[in-house]
Amino acid sequence: MRFVVAPTGFKECLPAGAVAEAITTGVHRVVPEAVTTTVPLIDGGEGSARQLAETTGGALVPVGVTGPTGDPVRARFALLGDTGIRTAFVEMAAAAGLSLVPADGRDPGSTTSHGVGELITAALDAGVEKIIIGCGDSGTCDGGAGALRALGARILDVTGRELVGGGAELTRARRIDTTGVDPRLREVELVVAANPANVLCGPNGVARRYGPQKGATPQRVEELAAAMRVWADLLRGHGGKWLSDASGGGASGGLGAGLAGIAGARLESRFDVLLDRAWLDRLLAAADLVITAEGAIDGTTAHGKVPAEVARRAKRHGKPVIALAGAIGAGAESSDDTGIDAFAAITSGPMEPADAINRAPELIAGATARTLRMLLLGRTLRAA
Amino acid sequence: MRFVVAPTGFKECLPAGAVAEAITTGVHRVVPEAVTTTVPLIDGGEGSARQLAETTGGALVPVGVTGPTGDPVRARFALLGDTGIRTAFVEMAAAAGLSLVPADGRDPGSTTSHGVGELITAALDAGVEKIIIGCGDSGTCDGGAGALRALGARILDVTGRELVGGGAELTRARRIDTTGVDPRLREVELVVAANPANVLCGPNGVARRYGPQKGATPQRVEELAAAMRVWADLLRGHGGKWLSDASGGGASGGLGAGLAGIAGARLESRFDVLLDRAWLDRLLAAADLVITAEGAIDGTTAHGKVPAEVARRAKRHGKPVIALAGAIGAGAESSDDTGIDAFAAITSGPMEPADAINRAPELIAGATARTLRMLLLGRTLRAA
Repeated sequence: MRFVVAPTGFKECLPAGAVAEAITTGVHRVVPEAVTTTVPLIDGGEGSARQLAETTGGALVPVGVTGPTGDPVRARFALLGDTGIRTAFVEMAAAAGLSLVPADGRDPGSTTSHGVGELITAALDAGVEKIIIGCGDSGTCDGGAGALRALGARILDVTGRELVGGGAELTRARRIDTTGVDPRLREVELVVAANPANVLCGPNGVARRYGPQKGATPQRVEELAAAMRVWADLLRGHGGKWLSDASGGGASGGLGAGLAGIAGARLESRFDVLLDRAWLDRLLAAADLVITAEGAIDGTTAHGKVPAEVARRAKRHGKPVIALAGAIGAGAESSDDTGIDAFAAITSGPMEPADAINRAPELIAGATARTLRMLLLGRTLRAA
Repeated sequence: MRFVVAPTGFKECLPAGAVAEAITTGVHRVVPEAVTTTVPLIDGGEGSARQLAETTGGALVPVGVTGPTGDPVRARFALLGDTGIRTAFVEMAAAAGLSLVPADGRDPGSTTSHGVGELITAALDAGVEKIIIGCGDSGTCDGGAGALRALGARILDVTGRELVGGGAELTRARRIDTTGVDPRLREVELVVAANPANVLCGPNGVARRYGPQKGATPQRVEELAAAMRVWADLLRGHGGKWLSDASGGGASGGLGAGLAGIAGARLESRFDVLLDRAWLDRLLAAADLVITAEGAIDGTTAHGKVPAEVARRAKRHGKPVIALAGAIGAGAESSDDTGIDAFAAITSGPMEPADAINRAPELIAGATARTLRMLLLGRTLRAA
């Protein structure tokens, strides 16, 4: 049997490569003669800069930035090897990720993406020709206002006073002064690698879909949804582009829309930017079984998460797909429509999250083995 | 598809009937047209008296007894309905179960089965003709010495002083005075429903196999193993029977051997006593898939636990068997030899044990559905 093992990393736990290795270990426990091809998938979120630096033979450049709550954060961007033109990869989460916001008292109305702008500036200082902004795992909902400020923009209220806070303040934004924006941005190719399912406004807008998991109360969610509408209007007035429902505009708390509206960034699907699609398609076409995985499988999985994207591509070739998850959350069934045929949790019983994280490689291998035994048993069942 | 759903109860969580119901719910989520037959299995351990009273249309009789640590315990025995002769079922764990011993400072060298003898006495007082002692989940390792004392026996050391403590004391036992033993025991049929894999002495004896999970330190395990050898010699001197490796003699900390040696009890396999084997065999023969379950699947499962017994019987008919578990522990793979083809944990991610217990019905249904999807996907895989 030929297996394609294509997981993403488990956030705050294991990078994609280690997840793929653990799955492969589990496969071989049950099918020693299995042919496995591992495709660790990088989604642009937490840990992506390190992975891309490693897989392209590039380097990580450390940069001290202002974190999402205003505290200093030791971030870094990746200078990619293996590319024709000199390219930097800026991981949004490294400067403004949710894991940088203390778990008690999280409020995406007050955090900012300021540090992301500082990372972009550092990449410009390094003289690159192309900057890819990897989105995902953000702790912000400021429409990228913080990042734009770090790049030289000024966001003003009706009295001309500058707004310097988080996304909730943007309900008062009336004008964006772009005269101070770093002129080097016009010389580089700026690409936002985004989940294409993420939009800035509307019922599926970033405030409503991701606000709660970033710590927003129901009232705060509505305030932020209103702020994103004001922000979309302002951005439209600037670039003439209507970004409220642009694909990827809602990425990372609206960072995508902000950079597209003011900094000349192009919004692209993270899968198009970060995956060698032709190569993956060839692998999927030759597979007997595709195994994907993510830290959590839940109601958001169907909306552009890696396992869903892998499943959609595999289904074009009619391939069976299973997904492993650190935790299966509410709404996981909705991922059935993406082409995931069946999923399984890695936990072997009740355990603390910290325990699951520490034991993740063995839990993943064990769950893979149990799951394959179940699958192979299914082959012997008589047809209904 | 025809499913036989044959789980045992999840200890300190859900009785077998509720487990079977949750599994059936999960089956119907995936295969709405499935024909399911539920066979909740009673293993004689914790919760069995209540289940037997319910399923036979009998009654529970409350009895205050001395618990395993000496504290009073509100126990009960079951008067079974639906039987030809007047029969009581005494659940060992109701009077001396591990869950009656506080979790901090558990020591099976000091606990006693005294309350079990009091329950037997109460059953005799009720005028029954047959008493079935259900073993399992004991917190003791006293060879049944406590129960025998409650029934009128005296266990004496070399100086003729009576021993009244737990199993560790039995290294000093030199004589059993049976003159005071309740004479009514000779008039009733006394049956110990035991796990036939449990023996009193030797490398797989009760002290070594179950001592650690009852709280014994490695040193205490060796003391208790020595005590059980002394006890086996004493019992042999009495009844002339060699009980050290009798099948079921090690049940419930050696209660089986004690009752067999002094009280005239017959040791029988709990499956023979508590299961209608012919009926189960007919069901298994007609099944397309057998689903069993227990709270834990681990290294002890193969040694006479319910899922292993169900799997062995199902395999005589060549049927596929899967097992669900609240937790999968060390050594679970050894259960493969019993005929369990594949197993799965019910947890959907990291969670507290108390949370898993509270949500058990939904977790079991969800895991059943996920597992069946995996099995049915397997049917579509091309052969290797």
